[in-house]
Amino acid sequence: MDRIVEFLRSSRPDGPCLVIDLEIVRENYLAFARAMPDTRIFYAVKANPEPRILELLASLGSSFDCASVAEIDMALAAGASPDRISFGNTIKKERDIPAASQRGVRLFAVDCEAEVEKIARSAPGADVFCRILCDGVGAQWPLSRKFGCEPSMAADVLERAHRLGLGARGLSFHVGSQQANVDAWDGAIAASARIFRECSARGIGLDLLNLGGGFPARYLKDVPGVPNYARAIGAALRRHFGNRIPSTIIEPGRGMVGNAGVIKAEVVLVSRKSKSVGEPRWVYLDIGKFGGLAETMDEAIRYPIRTPRDGEAKEPCIIAGPTCDSADVLYERDPYPLPVSLAAGDEILIEGAGAYTTTYSSVGFNGFRPLKSYVIGSVAGTWMGPGCGVDSCGKAADNDHGTVPRSGAFP
Amino acid sequence: MDRIVEFLRSSRPDGPCLVIDLEIVRENYLAFARAMPDTRIFYAVKANPEPRILELLASLGSSFDCASVAEIDMALAAGASPDRISFGNTIKKERDIPAASQRGVRLFAVDCEAEVEKIARSAPGADVFCRILCDGVGAQWPLSRKFGCEPSMAADVLERAHRLGLGARGLSFHVGSQQANVDAWDGAIAASARIFRECSARGIGLDLLNLGGGFPARYLKDVPGVPNYARAIGAALRRHFGNRIPSTIIEPGRGMVGNAGVIKAEVVLVSRKSKSVGEPRWVYLDIGKFGGLAETMDEAIRYPIRTPRDGEAKEPCIIAGPTCDSADVLYERDPYPLPVSLAAGDEILIEGAGAYTTTYSSVGFNGFRPLKSYVIGSVAGTWMGPGCGVDSCGKAADNDHGTVPRSGAFP
Repeated sequence: MDRIVEFLRSSRPDGPCLVIDLEIVRENYLAFARAMPDTRIFYAVKANPEPRILELLASLGSSFDCASVAEIDMALAAGASPDRISFGNTIKKERDIPAASQRGVRLFAVDCEAEVEKIARSAPGADVFCRILCDGVGAQWPLSRKFGCEPSMAADVLERAHRLGLGARGLSFHVGSQQANVDAWDGAIAASARIFRECSARGIGLDLLNLGGGFPARYLKDVPGVPNYARAIGAALRRHFGNRIPSTIIEPGRGMVGNAGVIKAEVVLVSRKSKSVGEPRWVYLDIGKFGGLAETMDEAIRYPIRTPRDGEAKEPCIIAGPTCDSADVLYERDPYPLPVSLAAGDEILIEGAGAYTTTYSSVGFNGFRPLKSYVIGSVAGTWMGPGCGVDSCGKAADNDHGTVPRSGAFP
Repeated sequence: MDRIVEFLRSSRPDGPCLVIDLEIVRENYLAFARAMPDTRIFYAVKANPEPRILELLASLGSSFDCASVAEIDMALAAGASPDRISFGNTIKKERDIPAASQRGVRLFAVDCEAEVEKIARSAPGADVFCRILCDGVGAQWPLSRKFGCEPSMAADVLERAHRLGLGARGLSFHVGSQQANVDAWDGAIAASARIFRECSARGIGLDLLNLGGGFPARYLKDVPGVPNYARAIGAALRRHFGNRIPSTIIEPGRGMVGNAGVIKAEVVLVSRKSKSVGEPRWVYLDIGKFGGLAETMDEAIRYPIRTPRDGEAKEPCIIAGPTCDSADVLYERDPYPLPVSLAAGDEILIEGAGAYTTTYSSVGFNGFRPLKSYVIGSVAGTWMGPGCGVDSCGKAADNDHGTVPRSGAFP
């Protein structure tokens, strides 16, 4: 955090931007690797596909969970070999399957027989794991029924794969993103063990259990550390699989990069809508739902916000983004306490913003450019010092104009 | 529609794309101009900033409602003179105000005294109109309290502008996007007339009423035609302003381009989640909430969908997008009837998709490229025939691979 603040102080980038500290990504990777030494780590590229994050993780030995051929190409470009890549999206265009296969990728997610048939046609002999539904209770960004089949269907799906000459390797599930309950994995591990036994009875020996993601980043509330998750998951594996524990995989995304990024934004306007005293003030930022903060949808993720006036008296505010879209409101149902003296031109820091921000950004809604991203720290492990951040966006032209000096710069 | 289908048939663009027919935009502009000959038309650029749409509208005499300096630059590039541009966003970075002013823009929206003060500092002598809150009942994409002040505050805001040397020109309001009730303008026009009288009593002569947008595109339900809106609004103006009707402005966005665009997409997977009979099938498309269909948020906009199997028996389906995000579900609460025989590889057409699609698209969530856009028809008014569509995206690399032939191509 201090390094990011120092970078912003010395570089003064214009407009809203995300700053990622690679040192924190490195710490997070090592925490997972230490806590779960027998588990392979597949970083969920969709959380933040910044090339230097991928290069760092590849150099540390990480594998990669990819949602598309484009993400597979990013992982390969970062130095990952194809055996360290899974095509983890259960919804694949058929022509993307041979594309992945031609790149050497052999591990695919499925959740229905139709997807198994596609893979058997387009990547004969590949390995598959079947995603099962799980309830996601306790997750801040819960998962719907979109991915996975009922556990009672999984053995049929895997048997179909086996009969079509694919490697029926095992199962996956996802307990919901930002999962604060370390015991959330237990029920899905129990269901998985039952499916392993059923497949075994059908003559199919499964050997892989993909435990998914869900490992949280710290937002406003404290969350348990990785060792707590590792202990609870290890105990559940022993409880349900006994001494026949399969190979395991985890797919952290938010847990790997969430706390490694801070967004610098600016207050554009503070106003009241009426003369009545009770109504909260509206605070408008230069970033909103369409500029990278899509996870404020339904006020799901509540980011910590630091302002240059944090010592002063606060009052609850409605926070909104800069676009002419009335849906671009971040926190309204549960107003956010901000300093009464906060004013247009003040810079603020939105913490825990390393995951699911840059790529959610719209290409140019209302003419606002996508969220810029800067990276500090080094892939090689040597701290490069402040000011080494490199603009890694290059996707859109700058739409800021003028040079009116900022007031209330942070910190 | 036939022209768009013919273009898709002959050009066979790969991946999801929007096709805009300029002839329909032209018809829409002329319908507004004919129905409301005394009203200036400010096209809401944010609805679709495609350069050839802006060029066409500029050539027809349209003015432009811009949300940012980038949109102002687009309108200028399309041939609009600065006196045909308003900076309609009530939330402006202070340094963007002189940037607009330097480009010759003199008309600004405000909704609070803080914004008035910014404009007085940064664009002395400019004209302003004050946006008031209005309830938005009847709108399919309703507006929140994000923009506008209580009507009881408006005279104070305008008086402040007047005292600071700005041209206090009048008022604006917005009855909510996709407003199906032609009488929705009446209440806001009545409130406006009261504020005009109050300002007059304070010695400030207002002369401009911005009636906003809200004019609908046709999705699944029929909507009233522009002449119906024109009659209702004209009657309300006479009722509340008598023989002192001010100059008026409208800001159609969706109503100008919504029905001019069709998205071509592809079914990626059709599956069932369980063996129980009652549960709807899931239909996954290669476009979703993060690829351009953001307005399906809360299932607000229900697009008409055409498939190559429309004559066959239908059953309700859950429709979802291609990303590994569980929020990327388009219609689930109210399942969508689609042909039972619909299968992976089928091409579908999503109608009424000309507004609020391309720019809502994320820069690359899950590695999927932003929505491509093609334009058919001609700015000059001469139909160019099918096959003249030009790729107007150029923002992202193609992430489609392989050449597996499609089944069930449309139509």
